[in-house]
Amino acid sequence: MERRIKVTFLGPVASFSHQAAVEFFGESAELLPRISFAHTLSAVQQNEADYAIIPCENSTNGAVVQTFDLLADPNNFYRDVKVCGAHYLTVHHCLLARRSVFTRPYDYGSVTKLYTHPQAWGQCESFLGADLKGIERQDVSSTSKAADIVSKDTERSAAIASRFSAGHYGLEVLKEHIEDKGDNITRFLVLRNSGSECTESGPLSDPINFRTPELSTSPVARKTLISFTVRQDTPGALADALLIFKSYGMNLTSINSRPSQKKNWQYVFFVECQGATLGEDDKAVAEILYRLQSVTEKCRHLGTWSE
Amino acid sequence: MERRIKVTFLGPVASFSHQAAVEFFGESAELLPRISFAHTLSAVQQNEADYAIIPCENSTNGAVVQTFDLLADPNNFYRDVKVCGAHYLTVHHCLLARRSVFTRPYDYGSVTKLYTHPQAWGQCESFLGADLKGIERQDVSSTSKAADIVSKDTERSAAIASRFSAGHYGLEVLKEHIEDKGDNITRFLVLRNSGSECTESGPLSDPINFRTPELSTSPVARKTLISFTVRQDTPGALADALLIFKSYGMNLTSINSRPSQKKNWQYVFFVECQGATLGEDDKAVAEILYRLQSVTEKCRHLGTWSE
Repeated sequence: MERRIKVTFLGPVASFSHQAAVEFFGESAELLPRISFAHTLSAVQQNEADYAIIPCENSTNGAVVQTFDLLADPNNFYRDVKVCGAHYLTVHHCLLARRSVFTRPYDYGSVTKLYTHPQAWGQCESFLGADLKGIERQDVSSTSKAADIVSKDTERSAAIASRFSAGHYGLEVLKEHIEDKGDNITRFLVLRNSGSECTESGPLSDPINFRTPELSTSPVARKTLISFTVRQDTPGALADALLIFKSYGMNLTSINSRPSQKKNWQYVFFVECQGATLGEDDKAVAEILYRLQSVTEKCRHLGTWSE
Repeated sequence: MERRIKVTFLGPVASFSHQAAVEFFGESAELLPRISFAHTLSAVQQNEADYAIIPCENSTNGAVVQTFDLLADPNNFYRDVKVCGAHYLTVHHCLLARRSVFTRPYDYGSVTKLYTHPQAWGQCESFLGADLKGIERQDVSSTSKAADIVSKDTERSAAIASRFSAGHYGLEVLKEHIEDKGDNITRFLVLRNSGSECTESGPLSDPINFRTPELSTSPVARKTLISFTVRQDTPGALADALLIFKSYGMNLTSINSRPSQKKNWQYVFFVECQGATLGEDDKAVAEILYRLQSVTEKCRHLGTWSE
């Protein structure tokens, strides 16, 4: 019997991370919700899970700083954890209620109470202002929690949450795509343990055959993530470090910086880059890492993957 | 009679921004609290205030992204607002109560309830765990709000807030420096309207004489902040842009990136830099801005100041 892939993510169940895990790994994977991003990385480091999937960036809100702070890893807790893939999840909000509480055409005015995460109110302002004006609102800790509460409620309440959570909690979708801005996308990173043999030859080592059929007809973009800290007493060191990427033909696709967690006003830089010539990344990355050692205090290859 | 300087900041009164404004501009300035960072920038753009002071970075938590999103200014709302100074505020927490409710030696065990901002509980864990274990905690929206509540309470309650807010609300400092980590520093930017004649020849144009006496005996470090967006279809453009800074002898002291608020996965980069040779920045900055135009979609000089 084939061994099921174990994937860990930030819960609760029916969260956006849960949805990303299902979209990326399929229904057959064993899904392990955890209470924090740190717990998902620990599970991979300890080989309790094969993969973790965590959000790193949202198209509207920018970097997920908690994720970068974990990847900075000042205490080497996650020394073997590497990025091996990425997944883009489009965030759609829906109005959900218990089945048969409301009948078509839906009379939104008879909703007695609305539940969702505070951020979602702002993202659905037009719809709420037009159709659900003045209805009592209750903040909860996540949109999936809102769906959970409504599924157990005895009132005519409704939740703003994903279609995915509707499926999970057996709720009816009264209206979908109620968000103001349709292109709110969260990018997730997929992580594995670089020492794990189970995932070494696993599906992610051959992305062409793994849930990304569209890639088989187009060149695969390979991305690399490298973190480094420059010495504070060396002016120009940051520019020197970035120049090294250029000299090996790697284009910078993004830069993030976070406090080093070691010294005030020292930063860990996260450079994501992509080779100008397909297929020549591995050698370039090795050379870049070698040369970065001379201009940085610490540097680390956080992974190379296809997306 | 001399005209009083008007300074705007994010309220409520007795907030950390208020404290930064008093520390930087002194008690004689007219201080104007506003309900959001955006309102403080608007006040400067509209010449309703001479200066705004807003936090841009914390030594532990990193960049204040709301501030960078305003400086990105995708709709040109704040086209004349420029950085003209910086101030570093050390965040110290104190245990505060109404005067004479507790008498020395303080019996912390008789405190009935504690109020503060959720973030402050975590920052004072050692003290709270040792001396105030098990006492009821109430989250409030800011540490200054906590001081406000305690000042009006009739119970034996206490707030965790700054010494500055104790002064404002007439509270007694039962214990100071109760934070676990003593070097939690927030950096503020001081902003002015570049078209304003009142501030052109004001104290900030001559930092040596303005509340920074220690600078008169040491060389003044001049920093420059420039924002730019690169074209998404031009690989290598980010490295090319950064190279320009280097070629004019400007060292990068920090880089931040935020979503452009125009297109998904396009970023505004914020480069802070400092000249290798004192006093030659102005010419270098002008040349850098000229050359950036050819490799960026948009670029903007956000200010040059002494710190």
